Amino acid sequence: QQTEADCALLVLHNDLEALLAAMLVANGAAAQGQRVVVFFTFWGLNLLRGDRPNQAAPVEKVSFIQKMFKWMMPKGPKRQKLGRMNFGGAGPMMLGGLMREKKIMELPTLIKQAEEQGVKFVACTMSMSVMGITKRDLEPRKNLAYGGVAYFVDAAKGAKMSLVF
Amino acid sequence: QQTEADCALLVLHNDLEALLAAMLVANGAAAQGQRVVVFFTFWGLNLLRGDRPNQAAPVEKVSFIQKMFKWMMPKGPKRQKLGRMNFGGAGPMMLGGLMREKKIMELPTLIKQAEEQGVKFVACTMSMSVMGITKRDLEPRKNLAYGGVAYFVDAAKGAKMSLVF
Amino acid sequence: QQTEADCALLVLHNDLEALLAAMLVANGAAAQGQRVVVFFTFWGLNLLRGDRPNQAAPVEKVSFIQKMFKWMMPKGPKRQKLGRMNFGGAGPMMLGGLMREKKIMELPTLIKQAEEQGVKFVACTMSMSVMGITKRDLEPRKNLAYGGVAYFVDAAKGAKMSLVF
Repeated sequence: QQTEADCALLVLHNDLEALLAAMLVANGAAAQGQRVVVFFTFWGLNLLRGDRPNQAAPVEKVSFIQKMFKWMMPKGPKRQKLGRMNFGGAGPMMLGGLMREKKIMELPTLIKQAEEQGVKFVACTMSMSVMGITKRDLEPRKNLAYGGVAYFVDAAKGAKMSLVF
Repeated sequence: QQTEADCALLVLHNDLEALLAAMLVANGAAAQGQRVVVFFTFWGLNLLRGDRPNQAAPVEKVSFIQKMFKWMMPKGPKRQKLGRMNFGGAGPMMLGGLMREKKIMELPTLIKQAEEQGVKFVACTMSMSVMGITKRDLEPRKNLAYGGVAYFVDAAKGAKMSLVF
Repeated sequence: QQTEADCALLVLHNDLEALLAAMLVANGAAAQGQRVVVFFTFWGLNLLRGDRPNQAAPVEKVSFIQKMFKWMMPKGPKRQKLGRMNFGGAGPMMLGGLMREKKIMELPTLIKQAEEQGVKFVACTMSMSVMGITKRDLEPRKNLAYGGVAYFVDAAKGAKMSLVF
């Protein structure tokens, strides 16, 4: 058994609404003492990307196509778009303004809180390999692990709840 | 323990296909005697909005931005759009026609049936506060409760199945 | 009890990323000895459609609207589009190229592997009836069953994990 979890989340999409919902559930479950694992795969991986290369990780060669792929995808928690009502970025700005007004945590803060609450993040190694996202591309985090689909299945099968976002 | 449920659904999107699927699963589970909780958050909240203000609920002040946000989102079960093949409303019309022809319940009927079967609806208070959706905006229902993410986590952790739509 | 499963997946969307994720989880769970049921409904049904009519199944009458509906939806595992970064088909081509390069199974192979591992596929009869998809339209498979929403609920309620894609 690789990982035991009470709550296993699979983050497949990088639409801002899905990322917010996933992080809110992760934090909500952790606040109740649950062991939470969040597995980031496919577009969801983009949430883990850092603004700058992680100098501690080795440089790995990626192809031109992969560079293009990566260049087209939004990096990190501040640049994700809404799947609906994005309006060229006006939607996320309005939403962010409303959340700040209501003193509700935005995505970067939710991620930090998840880290502090011991939520485990797992980057899908298969997605990384396909899209050319290397360890150097990911924001360094003490709660970050690497794994394939078996990692998620292991965590989910013993969990009280497993959800896809 | 706030809520015990056998089936806990999180409705995040308001695409017609997702809403139909969620309501079909809710009714299917309730028909088998399961206690079902459906938590409506983010865009999903729009399904609970009524055509007319609920006069029994107090008027609450919302900002101009929130009014705009609300105005841009489709209200209630009859106005939701398909996420794919919407064709400016032709898709939902065709789909509705086919469903009526096959005597399959459409969204408004599915919601009524869920109510009658004792399915509990929960409106996400955080989403309401952010988007300026007040109790006055929601269709009055005897099965409607209000709660935050902890409500959903409570229901999901003891449930036999928890799903995100 | 119609079906016992350890892992019950509901495939609602036919975006390539969701289909790949669903099939990877199905195969991952089956590889660990889990009994897996994948319920294909709504747009997800398109994954089960064959290139040619299944001659063993009877011809059923469908309406003109249904014919149009079916004609507009992509058939089978090779024609599905990405929900994000599709770029008129360039996205899936690039993704396919990268997957082949990394020796990662593509969708048609994942489906074959799922069959070989005993993953059960279920076509949603209600969706078939609405969209005019007949048994003749579906690729013949020995692991294919037909059922309504009760089938999925039955499988999910006893499962260790149930997920919606």
